[in-house]
Amino acid sequence: MIRHHPDRDQIQLENVLTALGNPMRLAVVRALAAGGELPCGTVLSKEISKSTLTHHWRVLRDSGVIWQRPSGRENLLSLRRDDLNIRFPGLLDAVLNGVQAAPESVNQYAAF
Amino acid sequence: MIRHHPDRDQIQLENVLTALGNPMRLAVVRALAAGGELPCGTVLSKEISKSTLTHHWRVLRDSGVIWQRPSGRENLLSLRRDDLNIRFPGLLDAVLNGVQAAPESVNQYAAF
Repeated sequence: MIRHHPDRDQIQLENVLTALGNPMRLAVVRALAAGGELPCGTVLSKEISKSTLTHHWRVLRDSGVIWQRPSGRENLLSLRRDDLNIRFPGLLDAVLNGVQAAPESVNQYAAF
Repeated sequence: MIRHHPDRDQIQLENVLTALGNPMRLAVVRALAAGGELPCGTVLSKEISKSTLTHHWRVLRDSGVIWQRPSGRENLLSLRRDDLNIRFPGLLDAVLNGVQAAPESVNQYAAF
């Protein structure tokens, strides 16, 4: 596992909120919300540069929102849903519902 | 009323999350959560500079988290609780519960 994943009880609310406060990162969280792992190259639009992606993976990982696991030549991403739900009950669902209600700013970064 | 308060349906999730993703601004939201208006000079620690406060009022106001209303020589602040609850159900309560569960980073900026 890549370093800099905080333990569950080290996840800080302000870091999670900052990580989620960006439409590109909200698009990642929405894509991962179905569960399981996704290769990092498949989560967002192909038009986003690798350096931009790397930045956003880091913010999401360091804040405790996602797991990032090396697999061959790429990384697999998954949402730390259980950890977030235990640490901040209701937060992730409220955010995902908010994205669903007004998806415009997020959709522009989606892989589909 | 000071300008730059977005209408309810113009409040953007990513802006609200970014505004909340800061312990000083979380301290403001917690202080205002009891309801009603508070003079801006009473909400946070007296040790915080006026320019820093002004910055945070702007971020909270522009994102749609608070109302800021001139009154005499100062401004009165209040939480846009109803607007946020209608726009993003459950989000504010989840955030306030998160602050209550781990208040350390927020307490250092509180007025008390």
